[in-house]
Amino acid sequence: MTPLLPEGFRDRLPPHADAAAAIEARALEAARLYGYERADPPLVEYADALGSRLKDGALTDAVRYVDPVSQRTLAIRPDVTAQIARIAATRMGHHPRPVRLSYAGPVLKLRSPELAPAREWRQIGCELIGLDSIPAAQEVVAVAVSALTAAGASGLSIDFTLPDLVDTLAAGPFPVAADKIDTLRDRLDAKDAGAVAALAPDYLPLVEAAGPFASALERLRAFDRDGVLASRLDGLAAIAAGLGEGVALTLDPTERHGFEYQTWLGFSLFIAGAPREVGRGGTYTVMHEGGAEEAATGFSLYADAILATAGPVERRRLFLPFGTPADAGAAMRAAGWVTVAALEANDTPEAQLATHVYADGTARAL
Amino acid sequence: MTPLLPEGFRDRLPPHADAAAAIEARALEAARLYGYERADPPLVEYADALGSRLKDGALTDAVRYVDPVSQRTLAIRPDVTAQIARIAATRMGHHPRPVRLSYAGPVLKLRSPELAPAREWRQIGCELIGLDSIPAAQEVVAVAVSALTAAGASGLSIDFTLPDLVDTLAAGPFPVAADKIDTLRDRLDAKDAGAVAALAPDYLPLVEAAGPFASALERLRAFDRDGVLASRLDGLAAIAAGLGEGVALTLDPTERHGFEYQTWLGFSLFIAGAPREVGRGGTYTVMHEGGAEEAATGFSLYADAILATAGPVERRRLFLPFGTPADAGAAMRAAGWVTVAALEANDTPEAQLATHVYADGTARAL
Repeated sequence: MTPLLPEGFRDRLPPHADAAAAIEARALEAARLYGYERADPPLVEYADALGSRLKDGALTDAVRYVDPVSQRTLAIRPDVTAQIARIAATRMGHHPRPVRLSYAGPVLKLRSPELAPAREWRQIGCELIGLDSIPAAQEVVAVAVSALTAAGASGLSIDFTLPDLVDTLAAGPFPVAADKIDTLRDRLDAKDAGAVAALAPDYLPLVEAAGPFASALERLRAFDRDGVLASRLDGLAAIAAGLGEGVALTLDPTERHGFEYQTWLGFSLFIAGAPREVGRGGTYTVMHEGGAEEAATGFSLYADAILATAGPVERRRLFLPFGTPADAGAAMRAAGWVTVAALEANDTPEAQLATHVYADGTARAL
Repeated sequence: MTPLLPEGFRDRLPPHADAAAAIEARALEAARLYGYERADPPLVEYADALGSRLKDGALTDAVRYVDPVSQRTLAIRPDVTAQIARIAATRMGHHPRPVRLSYAGPVLKLRSPELAPAREWRQIGCELIGLDSIPAAQEVVAVAVSALTAAGASGLSIDFTLPDLVDTLAAGPFPVAADKIDTLRDRLDAKDAGAVAALAPDYLPLVEAAGPFASALERLRAFDRDGVLASRLDGLAAIAAGLGEGVALTLDPTERHGFEYQTWLGFSLFIAGAPREVGRGGTYTVMHEGGAEEAATGFSLYADAILATAGPVERRRLFLPFGTPADAGAAMRAAGWVTVAALEANDTPEAQLATHVYADGTARAL
């Protein structure tokens, strides 16, 4: 038997597709209230142009094809953030800063990424272009929390990281040979104390610096005798202080995987019951034509991961027996009911998954 | 200068992307109230499987690529209706009939179709699978009208057609040679009286039968002396009777282009101010494995065409001066405001396109 769909692709059926759309709509509405307006880039771009804004090598994961019109190679987006950066740098290049944009849409990969079988998923996000300051990060984290809460998530936790930590220390008090710095970052990310001790023993305290936010921050403050991290640590403290009691915070300053292109701040978003992170964000750099760089802060959410934590979807459907007058159905819909009309005499409420039946102007529960 | 995007693709920017999303959400919500639940098929399918449910030749308009995982050719959907038919026939094959499904998502073409430059657009639709009866058509037309009205459209008109008209007449009172029937359909569609007179003079009255609904129906009744069209004409009359005064109706019984795969009923949806039709629908056949056929009725809408008729989008944004307490912003958002916070001391309401400024607990209009 040939499977109906290729590996990594799936149908979302009722009632889950409505639930996923509702999650997405509520998350974007929460962001809209903070001034984030939607941008909707196309599925397809010139491959070289899109690739220049993706992580190194990411274009090889994109579905590409030769355009019979332009004879150039086009790519289907494997990521929306790169497109939002393009819009901010080009079409909205002259818009006063900061620019606040949100987006939602499918992304496609040629192969599924490590650890996840999907080759298509929906990406939702917000980008604040023009700033990567502490107030910018505070706002972006607040919008992410608000979007997840509006989407029905509970048990939020945020894991912060400092993506350029090793570069900052290496440029300051703890120099590292250029050919060793990648390995050091990697071994710190892996919490491999033995390797870190052999490579750069000054960095060893960082292996133990991950954990609940307050204590991890305290250990980092103690480690940062020269104060080169002070502005970053003050920033983290300010962001944490701005978040309510309901959000659990952790700090893993050397986490690097997935934050290769973030600048001073990165964060992963978790919610209770989700098998993996439901989003991530941080500060980054938008490239302009001619090489100018612009600071930015943003986050992406994965609606599928959020949906996976939702409880069973409850349907409430009112069966209209065959021959129910059209205006009676309209009145019930106006009162908020989902009506399911019998279009044949032998249709039944059970067949239509109805929870109620219309009779004499009212809805009777089944 | 290389254009930013390939021909036929575009960015939708603020505030139009939010407006388009709102149109789509309102249209789908209207359908949801009639019991239509969303299905969300993937962007990608096996090319041969998808092609078998598309119009002949439509697969050549699809973007295709070789899947490195399965080594098979995959296609990006040029149409969602074919995917909904697949879901109804397979995963939901054992669900009691009728099945009511809605959908919304992007579709992609390798080349732009005649007369329209776009190669990607959003398709929204509803499909009622299991019935193509008069009550089924009445419901589907009512849902389409409700969806367009909810989306803010006004000046609705519906142009009905009878896609299998020539086949029905040729099988009955007015036989046509098999090698002439395609040409006859084409010439009738073109209202080419000279060619129709030469090909099949019996059909000549049909050239004049298009126009306002009531008079066109009357002419068709007069033409249908043998009554072979009676059930179709009764059906059209019943559908028209079920629609309110606010919808203008026309009948073009020989219109064929774009309705090649419809069965007894087709319709095009128009709204005031739209440069072209904003949707179309009708009755059709869903193929099941093993060759069984199932009747269905549905419609698709084009959000872009609806958006083109919308007036200017009004923004209402409340500027929060730098240092406004977070809880003050939250209170204003809870009261329904879109807030735009200054994240630097020198940010201004003008730069943030704000219409109001927050001061002392209230919003002051600018």
